[in-house]
Amino acid sequence: MKKAQTRISIVMDEIQNKITSRVYLPSTKLPSVRAQARMLSVSVSTVVEAYERLMAEGIIISRPGSGFYVSGPISPLALTQMGPKLDREVDPLWVSRQALDTNTATLKPGCGWLPATWLYETGMRKALRSMSRNESLELVEYATSLGHPELRQLLSRRLNSHRIDVDPNQIMLTESGTQAIDLICRFFLAPGDTVIVDDPCYFNFHALLKAHRVNIVSVPYTVNGPDLEIFKTVLDEYTPRLYITNSAIHNPTGATLSPVTAHRLLKLIDHTNLIIVEDDIFADFELTAAPRLASFDGLNRVIQIGSFSKTISASVRCGYIAARTDWVEDLVDLKIATSFGGGRFAAELILHVLKDSGYRKHMEVVRTRLANEMVKTAAKLEALGIKPWITPQAGMFLWCKLPQGLDAGHIAQACLKHGVVLAPGNAFSQSLTAKDFLRFNVAQSTDDHIFEVLAEVIAQHIN
Amino acid sequence: MKKAQTRISIVMDEIQNKITSRVYLPSTKLPSVRAQARMLSVSVSTVVEAYERLMAEGIIISRPGSGFYVSGPISPLALTQMGPKLDREVDPLWVSRQALDTNTATLKPGCGWLPATWLYETGMRKALRSMSRNESLELVEYATSLGHPELRQLLSRRLNSHRIDVDPNQIMLTESGTQAIDLICRFFLAPGDTVIVDDPCYFNFHALLKAHRVNIVSVPYTVNGPDLEIFKTVLDEYTPRLYITNSAIHNPTGATLSPVTAHRLLKLIDHTNLIIVEDDIFADFELTAAPRLASFDGLNRVIQIGSFSKTISASVRCGYIAARTDWVEDLVDLKIATSFGGGRFAAELILHVLKDSGYRKHMEVVRTRLANEMVKTAAKLEALGIKPWITPQAGMFLWCKLPQGLDAGHIAQACLKHGVVLAPGNAFSQSLTAKDFLRFNVAQSTDDHIFEVLAEVIAQHIN
Repeated sequence: MKKAQTRISIVMDEIQNKITSRVYLPSTKLPSVRAQARMLSVSVSTVVEAYERLMAEGIIISRPGSGFYVSGPISPLALTQMGPKLDREVDPLWVSRQALDTNTATLKPGCGWLPATWLYETGMRKALRSMSRNESLELVEYATSLGHPELRQLLSRRLNSHRIDVDPNQIMLTESGTQAIDLICRFFLAPGDTVIVDDPCYFNFHALLKAHRVNIVSVPYTVNGPDLEIFKTVLDEYTPRLYITNSAIHNPTGATLSPVTAHRLLKLIDHTNLIIVEDDIFADFELTAAPRLASFDGLNRVIQIGSFSKTISASVRCGYIAARTDWVEDLVDLKIATSFGGGRFAAELILHVLKDSGYRKHMEVVRTRLANEMVKTAAKLEALGIKPWITPQAGMFLWCKLPQGLDAGHIAQACLKHGVVLAPGNAFSQSLTAKDFLRFNVAQSTDDHIFEVLAEVIAQHIN
Repeated sequence: MKKAQTRISIVMDEIQNKITSRVYLPSTKLPSVRAQARMLSVSVSTVVEAYERLMAEGIIISRPGSGFYVSGPISPLALTQMGPKLDREVDPLWVSRQALDTNTATLKPGCGWLPATWLYETGMRKALRSMSRNESLELVEYATSLGHPELRQLLSRRLNSHRIDVDPNQIMLTESGTQAIDLICRFFLAPGDTVIVDDPCYFNFHALLKAHRVNIVSVPYTVNGPDLEIFKTVLDEYTPRLYITNSAIHNPTGATLSPVTAHRLLKLIDHTNLIIVEDDIFADFELTAAPRLASFDGLNRVIQIGSFSKTISASVRCGYIAARTDWVEDLVDLKIATSFGGGRFAAELILHVLKDSGYRKHMEVVRTRLANEMVKTAAKLEALGIKPWITPQAGMFLWCKLPQGLDAGHIAQACLKHGVVLAPGNAFSQSLTAKDFLRFNVAQSTDDHIFEVLAEVIAQHIN
């Protein structure tokens, strides 16, 4: 009797494992009792008993006259249930939700955008008043499939200024920078493909890639760009399809790609099929322009994406993809299929703001303010023993190491109770090797209360 | 020698087929020469020669010291290259692009939206002026993860009025109605799953589902809803995961689901794992409310989605998903991962318009205009021997049969040369059984030139 019990458990475990690993998909039919018995080399009665117990547990269901099915609907893409279980504090989705959902009274030195008061609100108001007098098409019609022609022309000129030779017809507007990357992933990736990201990198890349069910491999980011030796090893070992990275100012480290690393990286991928997605979202924060992979490569193997959420408004959604003409054609189809045409409104509004001479002046002020806050924040952090990894040339991020190997997840958890949202390092690190790092947004760190809370929490954790 | 040649060709074909059918994915490693020879029961030298010829053709590449790889990057999701080759005129993506990209001077009785002048432009202008005085958060910040709380409250009340009992926290805002369906597909579907659509149905459902690499099965739509006998056969045969359909006014037929069909359909799926996605995008066009599956079912197995692109503006993108609380949780994660937070702006603008008392009056006028144009358009079409399948209770669509078995694709092609964009039946029909049908949008059919062109083209094709 005991042996029979064990055999039943083994069969149950076997089936459970296949459901968990999606060998048996939700709602699909299980092998018949007879076939299962044969496959597992057990008796029919063992399988009958195992199926019955799995039914009692609600794991499978029986459909009279048809057979046994995996219970459903189990969501195949519950992102939180995919991959290794992460502590909540370093789970990219949890970090995003904290930043998005906590009320505005909360202090958010961990969030990835400028405070509302730093953005170009005056320009937005002016653009809105002007648009309320616009012709009706802009207000109510779908956009053309590539998106607003005049905004694409302006973007093409902006990219030209970074020595990226691109025709307006090679630019497709998207609903956001994230949607731009998502469309590229849909285009190039199939489940199981390998994608390279920087370690550390913008945490939502991890969540996005999870949604595409791909294998994520990370390469350490150095002060000059990705570690090329490790990059080469990964290339050889995994035949990756995509490498997603930031240009201009790297998120979260604030580092800048050097021309030499850019050149060597492109040489490295020369005889491979790797495509690089260069996220240029921080372009307007630069004081001096860093090299762009898209410029070195000439938009052959590199695709550039960007958006206006960090400089103009995160409320009005608009991004873009600049790529080879043949790819853009297929990307347009994918955009239509998955989000239809896109709207004219956001693009028109962004265009109004970009054309406004005030925008350039506004960004000059923002850059100066950021530089000032960078110095001030670094000083306040150093006073607490928190050391910036580098002093970034520009931008809003300081990637900092905690004193004495403190766990950033624990510190973040404790600070949250005091109304301070931090961004712990391992949320950015696929290899989970940034346990003692935090990313600070200097524009969101102007309130001294943040440092009082930090000091108190650190003191508690050191003792 | 000849025999060896044949064997080499067979091996080449075998490999080519595996690449086409994605058994060998782009950029992946091929089996070694030795392994391939074993598998195909041919000599090593045959495989060596086959690999070399495939290399010469650029189909595979060799990486020294590593082996042979499928050439890439071949785009795995070039939608136009997937599935059976369709005539351009009935290719959903081509139809969408025609409607989106042809200039505004073109006449578009085939497009799926109201003319700009019919939309609530005054309301939009008023909302914009008001928003230009709004507090800055609405203008520049990300939305919370579920989306604008006040708009979700308003939507919950609107759904309640259709007897759908839904809490604001069961509603998640999206960037558009299409994105809403796309997120649901990402959530429930894996490549190879089966999805049911109506035949005919909104053509972009075909394109969207193609992007998810699923098996599309269509069920004929009758004047009362889906043909339930065929629906049952499909349920039994394919164990489908989703059924995507329109509520209120069916696109393209203008038919209305009957309460009896709604009841029987839900009974039919009772012991299955099928989930129904009810696209309620035409709700505000109804004169009397049709039954909603979401109402009968109580949002248990039914998910409702909607947007404002047909009534307020297609330029300002905003849609929603109403679903079970546990599903909404996971859908929020997917939304953050693939499009980050979404913006506040569009939702705020839509809220302004919906709260405006003028909107209700505006929609009354639209409904009356549509009813008038419906009668007029039907008369003009009947004069040409083009017969509406039914007289819809409301909405903008007339699903019409051409005289004498004329091919709608040919008619559409000929009319396009005269600047008239039509929507041929087979673009809506997965089974390609609507060859002699056209969908007319009565709001886009007010110009008599359309009927002059049609008369001329029909006369040419009959003779």
